[in-house]
Amino acid sequence: MSRVYDRVAYIGLGLIASSMIHAGRRAGLQGEIVGTARSAETRAIAAEDGLCDVVTETAAEAVKDADLVVLCVPVGAMGAVAEEIGPHLKPGCTVSDVGSVKRAVIEAVKPHLPEGVHFIPAHPLAGTEHSGPRSGFAELFENRYTLIVPEGDTDPQALARLERFWAGMGAHVELMEPEHHDLVLMVTSHAPHLIAYTMVGVADDLRRVTDSEVIKYSAAGFRDFTRIAASDPTMWRDVFLNNREATMEILGRFIEELMRLQRAIRKGDGDLLHEYFTRTRAIRRGIIQAGQDTSAPDFGRGHGQGQSKG
Amino acid sequence: MSRVYDRVAYIGLGLIASSMIHAGRRAGLQGEIVGTARSAETRAIAAEDGLCDVVTETAAEAVKDADLVVLCVPVGAMGAVAEEIGPHLKPGCTVSDVGSVKRAVIEAVKPHLPEGVHFIPAHPLAGTEHSGPRSGFAELFENRYTLIVPEGDTDPQALARLERFWAGMGAHVELMEPEHHDLVLMVTSHAPHLIAYTMVGVADDLRRVTDSEVIKYSAAGFRDFTRIAASDPTMWRDVFLNNREATMEILGRFIEELMRLQRAIRKGDGDLLHEYFTRTRAIRRGIIQAGQDTSAPDFGRGHGQGQSKG
Repeated sequence: MSRVYDRVAYIGLGLIASSMIHAGRRAGLQGEIVGTARSAETRAIAAEDGLCDVVTETAAEAVKDADLVVLCVPVGAMGAVAEEIGPHLKPGCTVSDVGSVKRAVIEAVKPHLPEGVHFIPAHPLAGTEHSGPRSGFAELFENRYTLIVPEGDTDPQALARLERFWAGMGAHVELMEPEHHDLVLMVTSHAPHLIAYTMVGVADDLRRVTDSEVIKYSAAGFRDFTRIAASDPTMWRDVFLNNREATMEILGRFIEELMRLQRAIRKGDGDLLHEYFTRTRAIRRGIIQAGQDTSAPDFGRGHGQGQSKG
Repeated sequence: MSRVYDRVAYIGLGLIASSMIHAGRRAGLQGEIVGTARSAETRAIAAEDGLCDVVTETAAEAVKDADLVVLCVPVGAMGAVAEEIGPHLKPGCTVSDVGSVKRAVIEAVKPHLPEGVHFIPAHPLAGTEHSGPRSGFAELFENRYTLIVPEGDTDPQALARLERFWAGMGAHVELMEPEHHDLVLMVTSHAPHLIAYTMVGVADDLRRVTDSEVIKYSAAGFRDFTRIAASDPTMWRDVFLNNREATMEILGRFIEELMRLQRAIRKGDGDLLHEYFTRTRAIRRGIIQAGQDTSAPDFGRGHGQGQSKG
């Protein structure tokens, strides 16, 4: 794999940025790696671990002479960062981001970027429930989709270069419109997160079941919700506040549907329930066939694989 | 490990029964294994694979001379099976089950059992999204809880024997009251399942996002819901119909809580969201500390473990 950018600046050094650094370094995609973070502790860790070649105090310093600048801060902080770095960007450089919503990021960032800078938003669909500069690993993007979301007139060469960068880290790269991105992600990621947060919150609130019982007996179902609900609070707060309309729409649909099932249970309508649960099972099969999950029982959590015979 | 029961009859040969057979055989806990299932295909598979030593056509035949009878049929079928086997049970034998709700099973089964038979309900908190006689494996119960739910006067010796049987299969055995069991399981398992089913159903319904998009981009969050929502439809239909009151209560709470978060999003109340998401993260840490899940990122789904340095 050959070098794609001579100098890459990462603003924010959490799970995604540190994974990009590891993945890009492994594949030789980037020359010098510059990084910065708002927290002094994060900057100290990045320097101590050798995560970046250069750690700067400010974003303005970090972007100097960078060919690619990647904004890896929570969605709500993107606008302020763009305002800070705007005057210091190298003409002809590319600015990208990894935010989970795109329309709001475009509106916050674009006005601050000078002419001659290529702004190409992106979103890697990968993550874990961990965060921070030590949570990243080179394999995070492998066999996962990264959506590149060009907006307005985008220079084809700058776009092709960013695509090469992401493909080099192991991602399947696809292009998508900002509005459609925000809707697809609402369904596949944001709403499930909000619902998992709610379920875990309800369990915690229910005084007649102790916390220790919830924790001990979580194996069947609840455990998977808690993983989702353990994701970074700041990131998710910003996602919901910045994709408000789509959130409202799908929550409305969800509550409506939940009430339909609730009514079926109250009326004892077993046929409706059985038909419903059979349909959702088919969707699962589609995901396994698409290679986006394992069919190993229980995610292969240390059980035997498949059946032992006899 | 020494033999606990000379002859064990399994009524129903799905994931749980076949796992009990493998686990019990591996540990030498059971002598002769008799099994039956309503479906002729399941019986043929059980005979062909040597899953059981004897496969019978009917439950009445299967329980003859059995020291332990385990009802492994959906909760809604328990009453009819109990009625069928009642007259054929060996005096002094133990009848148990593996149903996910306990009060409804006790009410359905108990009236059909003769004097001198020990009825001791149980519920192993273990499972995968797979089902059928070939889905079982010996390790399913290891390091998982099995709740034994004695009701009324229970013979201490018969109880101790059943505890020994489950512990021999690797389970942590605990005792619990039927009503409390049904409430705890509602929170930790039943409600999460219903909610996952609903979420997957809503996604499927939403016409502006294609099914293939939902499937392709499912990695972040939605994927975990589909696993839960792929569980056996008949089993889950019966669970909800037989634990109706607790289901109604928790769904009410859930909808209320969801509306609170919805309102916070609409009003842009970032502090409330951040506080909420921080609290749920702490619950996750408790589950990992209790040894009921792995802290490996993303369940250790084929990513690198932890961070690769430098």
